[in-house]
Amino acid sequence: MAATLAFWYEFASTYSYPAAARIEAGANTAGVAVEWRPFLLGPIFAAQGWTDSPFNLYPVKGRYMWRDLERICAREGLPFRRPSRFPRNSLLAARVALIAAGEGWGAEFTRAVYRANFAEDRDIADADVIGGVLSALGRPAAPILARAGSPEIKQRLKAQNEEAVALGIFGAPSFTIAGELFWGNDRLDEAIAWARRAVAA
Amino acid sequence: MAATLAFWYEFASTYSYPAAARIEAGANTAGVAVEWRPFLLGPIFAAQGWTDSPFNLYPVKGRYMWRDLERICAREGLPFRRPSRFPRNSLLAARVALIAAGEGWGAEFTRAVYRANFAEDRDIADADVIGGVLSALGRPAAPILARAGSPEIKQRLKAQNEEAVALGIFGAPSFTIAGELFWGNDRLDEAIAWARRAVAA
Repeated sequence: MAATLAFWYEFASTYSYPAAARIEAGANTAGVAVEWRPFLLGPIFAAQGWTDSPFNLYPVKGRYMWRDLERICAREGLPFRRPSRFPRNSLLAARVALIAAGEGWGAEFTRAVYRANFAEDRDIADADVIGGVLSALGRPAAPILARAGSPEIKQRLKAQNEEAVALGIFGAPSFTIAGELFWGNDRLDEAIAWARRAVAA
Repeated sequence: MAATLAFWYEFASTYSYPAAARIEAGANTAGVAVEWRPFLLGPIFAAQGWTDSPFNLYPVKGRYMWRDLERICAREGLPFRRPSRFPRNSLLAARVALIAAGEGWGAEFTRAVYRANFAEDRDIADADVIGGVLSALGRPAAPILARAGSPEIKQRLKAQNEEAVALGIFGAPSFTIAGELFWGNDRLDEAIAWARRAVAA
């Protein structure tokens, strides 16, 4: 009986990129299952009075983040190119990721979208780009993109965001397990360890 | 020839408490020297338009931080009691810490003040509390407190803060080495490793 760590991520979130890249390997080793939970930070930031990423609102913090991310990617052997536009609108990608998670290919789709945004500087808000990602994964792009715009998926993403807020989530990546919240790529190992102890208990 | 890691801390900063507790042991093991650099976040936050700690301004983030800090202290075996007042005014403690750092007892004074604030819920803004900390360390409280109010020390703390801003520091704890900035208790090990490589290079 494996514990399940919920991985809450936002496709525009820079630190979610390295987290998405390594969560599966770390969780597998620990015997922990991962639940892929895309959500949107936009509405959560807006509720705090922010109309842009805090990394843009506070340029000193933003400068630090880009250098920090560059160091992290170098350390983890992840390709990285600073996107020419930040943050990119992640609504379509999040909706498709919801479909993907429901069908068991959430991990590979998610990693491919992060790569497109943060290693290839492609516009993930563009349906052609997401369609290209889907095709490269051997998924039928047109019907999936159509379903992403359906009331059902729109409603499910809304509900997912409401759940994030109810769990006290305010940033990405976040990890939740057994009433505990962990925020940040730098909390991933601790979150996995917590989940492993939750199984043992 | 040891590399020197500059440790930038603010006595009101919650995450600086575990960093101050463990930085010396980690740095010693790596053959890295530590420079104790107290500074004030108040003027830096004010320049961003914040008149209070972001953990108070954004209560959801604040709730998370207190639980996160509790988990970290439990893991590190550090005593912790949530202060009845947060943040506490750290001006006097920072001035005394500057004196202490100059005389080679910055580490022990700093750790004692963090313990007073975050384990004993004592008001570190109070000269009697800081005097008590000094006496417990076998230091003559009265002359040190008098010197802390001197124009020389006031000016040096101001200059230290200007240096922090010039280094791109926007939060605490921060660590600087060879043009690199690391922010957060969770970056301490990486900062030490960076400093160690700086020596080797």
